[in-house]
Amino acid sequence: MTALPLLQEELGPLVDVRPEALEEARADRSGHAAVGRPLAVVHAETVDHVQRTMRIATATRTPVVVRGAGTGLAGAANAGEGEIVLSTRRMDAILEVRPDDLLAVVEPGILNADLNDRLAASGVWWAPDPASRDISTVGGNIATGAGGLLCAKYGVVRDAVLGVDLVLADGRLLHLGHRSVKGVTGLDLTSLVIGSEGTLGVVVGATLKLRRLVAGDVCTLTATFPDVRAAAAASAAVTAAGVQPAIMELMDAASLAAVHALLDLPAPAPGAAQLTVRTDGPAAAAEAETIAGILRDHGGLTTLARDREEGERLLAIRRSMHAAMASLGTTLIEDVSVPRSAMPAMFDEIARIERDFGLTIPTVAHAGDGNLHPNFIFEGPETPTHVWAAADELFRSAIRLGGTLTGEHGIGVLKRRWLADELGDDQWRLQRQIAGVFDPLGILNPGKVFEPDA
Amino acid sequence: MTALPLLQEELGPLVDVRPEALEEARADRSGHAAVGRPLAVVHAETVDHVQRTMRIATATRTPVVVRGAGTGLAGAANAGEGEIVLSTRRMDAILEVRPDDLLAVVEPGILNADLNDRLAASGVWWAPDPASRDISTVGGNIATGAGGLLCAKYGVVRDAVLGVDLVLADGRLLHLGHRSVKGVTGLDLTSLVIGSEGTLGVVVGATLKLRRLVAGDVCTLTATFPDVRAAAAASAAVTAAGVQPAIMELMDAASLAAVHALLDLPAPAPGAAQLTVRTDGPAAAAEAETIAGILRDHGGLTTLARDREEGERLLAIRRSMHAAMASLGTTLIEDVSVPRSAMPAMFDEIARIERDFGLTIPTVAHAGDGNLHPNFIFEGPETPTHVWAAADELFRSAIRLGGTLTGEHGIGVLKRRWLADELGDDQWRLQRQIAGVFDPLGILNPGKVFEPDA
Repeated sequence: MTALPLLQEELGPLVDVRPEALEEARADRSGHAAVGRPLAVVHAETVDHVQRTMRIATATRTPVVVRGAGTGLAGAANAGEGEIVLSTRRMDAILEVRPDDLLAVVEPGILNADLNDRLAASGVWWAPDPASRDISTVGGNIATGAGGLLCAKYGVVRDAVLGVDLVLADGRLLHLGHRSVKGVTGLDLTSLVIGSEGTLGVVVGATLKLRRLVAGDVCTLTATFPDVRAAAAASAAVTAAGVQPAIMELMDAASLAAVHALLDLPAPAPGAAQLTVRTDGPAAAAEAETIAGILRDHGGLTTLARDREEGERLLAIRRSMHAAMASLGTTLIEDVSVPRSAMPAMFDEIARIERDFGLTIPTVAHAGDGNLHPNFIFEGPETPTHVWAAADELFRSAIRLGGTLTGEHGIGVLKRRWLADELGDDQWRLQRQIAGVFDPLGILNPGKVFEPDA
Repeated sequence: MTALPLLQEELGPLVDVRPEALEEARADRSGHAAVGRPLAVVHAETVDHVQRTMRIATATRTPVVVRGAGTGLAGAANAGEGEIVLSTRRMDAILEVRPDDLLAVVEPGILNADLNDRLAASGVWWAPDPASRDISTVGGNIATGAGGLLCAKYGVVRDAVLGVDLVLADGRLLHLGHRSVKGVTGLDLTSLVIGSEGTLGVVVGATLKLRRLVAGDVCTLTATFPDVRAAAAASAAVTAAGVQPAIMELMDAASLAAVHALLDLPAPAPGAAQLTVRTDGPAAAAEAETIAGILRDHGGLTTLARDREEGERLLAIRRSMHAAMASLGTTLIEDVSVPRSAMPAMFDEIARIERDFGLTIPTVAHAGDGNLHPNFIFEGPETPTHVWAAADELFRSAIRLGGTLTGEHGIGVLKRRWLADELGDDQWRLQRQIAGVFDPLGILNPGKVFEPDA
């Protein structure tokens, strides 16, 4: 028996076989698309729907790709020939908000921004803020271990989840983690699921750790530097000085020029790089002054926003990065992360790779935590071989500097060939065996993360 | 071939078979002792010593109990008949401190307080502060996923470790985690090792996430309430009001009376319970005022320390709890944790259990995070059956209130019989299988955590 008729029999109209739905599920925001078309998209609306889908998948040995909003950047939720797409996008309820206990229980399909809009009324928020927050789901944020702009001060997804409800490959439902702040009962499987990219099970619910809304206004400033190395060194000096901005974003010359062109702003000086810094909380104004002083001492030309509106305008330049890149061609957004003190050295490496490969690699960085997003631009849908060769150099440089090949986007299909380089063969095999404990038949996202390239 | 002659041949004087060393390794601070005597204590001084010990253990199928300073409260590091004790206590070097990257690389045997004394010169600290911090090792803190007094504001061990070096049962060395702030390469095995109580491998090194020393002075206050429920409700109100104390400790009437007796202080009013609160950072004084107001509104009689010295005197009452309990008899320190709003209900449950079992259960709580330490006092070395029956009720009540049977002490041997109650049978089996991936021969801490009672 094949899976499709069983799914249709059990789940009826939730099983979507429209060609456009199948086509859409082949790709994510990385631009990469899987080979062939999936069998069907199951639009699960309840935990029971997920369990029934997984039981059929297990009975028929059919691969399952769990999918939220499809905004991933590593191809982890792309579904190909013969696979079931299990969408949790419709499971978007907020089941409970407890401002007194600083927790919320939610379904996985709710969008990050929608959740935060709803939480604001209770005076609380969920801190992870990937750039995709308006269009990405909480379940997807958990599956990738997402980060964002505010992480250096307010943490990443791993710091903001107390528990996860997980449906295993065979359809059993597990409740992992706690509702209490502390808890060390057995192994921390909640953390293991965060960032596991659909290889361990289907996240059908999450108990989120909330924060209280930060009181007071925010202060925003920019600082322009003659070159990117100076900007990186200045941002490292801010961290080293012990001031903690909420946001500290770096744009190199190519990024800054591209965004200015897109927004019809005057062209920046050749080679100029920019830091955009935001402080918040009761000491926001004093901290902004301190940071501005440090940046000036490091050769920065600073502009302090007079009000919130001007602050938003300054930050809009950074937020227009993706649009600016898209206007130049197809974009491969990379995601290396290094210790903060190694950022200037990492920018040196990027400059070297640009020279060696004859490429321009516009780069932005979450400078507060050392996470860089170098962008490779090319024509057509397929990443050219020489771009992958340059990316290979990039990953090796990051690892050599004590960093990692992915700070917040994940491995998916696009980086699986480098996974063992970072983990080492022993750890790579061990991780694969652990995934096998959750999914002995190997039906959960096969070919992703742990599968070496064919 | 048996393990002992092989160990002696390979490791010579590091292999300790003195009867007093073997006897000491049978017990931890829980008072519980393993049955029989271990084979030997290996005092590893290098990673290589650990690897050689594990290779011999694997070759001879000999169980290994990893041990730091032996200050655990659940029996996880207690070694019995025929087991090798692998002590990492002598591996106590600080290999690297990077204030600019807010990280330190350390060996596992360093004491928590010694580490923090050394870090202070660089203006940084490692936040986890178990009550045992003067006598417990960082490796032990990692193995148990330790908490402490400052966790509600500054986090637990899980929030403060970037990476771990782990020697597997067969002697292979893995480097888990990152030096960068962000990193989502593969599964988060660092988090899996935190709190794994010696069942997955031997922690031989750790990359710790540091914080900058908090500027400004601290403010300390106490508030006395007519009964413990009022004190618990007042502490929950502080959390709900959005003020974040650094420390918020609760002592019930029996605890308070015992400590007052020990310290020769005037006896408190019958039934009176006390909160001790400390604020820190630039707004410490204003926050202390706000908190004092909330506590008074909830019926508390407050005392604000005039200076740091008086503050230390107030906090010394809470810190004398263990000594006060030890003066009354043998103590079984329990460790349930509940959502903060459930603390009053948990104290009701403790009162019910006291009535039902005819016991007095002096209880202190880390009220800022909902972690309670009820103490059972009895005569002689063995925990009486009726005490375990009362503890059983306690654990079930905590789980029913959305909490956990251990907030920060771990499962060890003392709570393994309740582990499946909290995890559910499916998760319990899955966790055991995962441990089996790391340790297929089952030589790492056999009988602990996952072993059902004989």
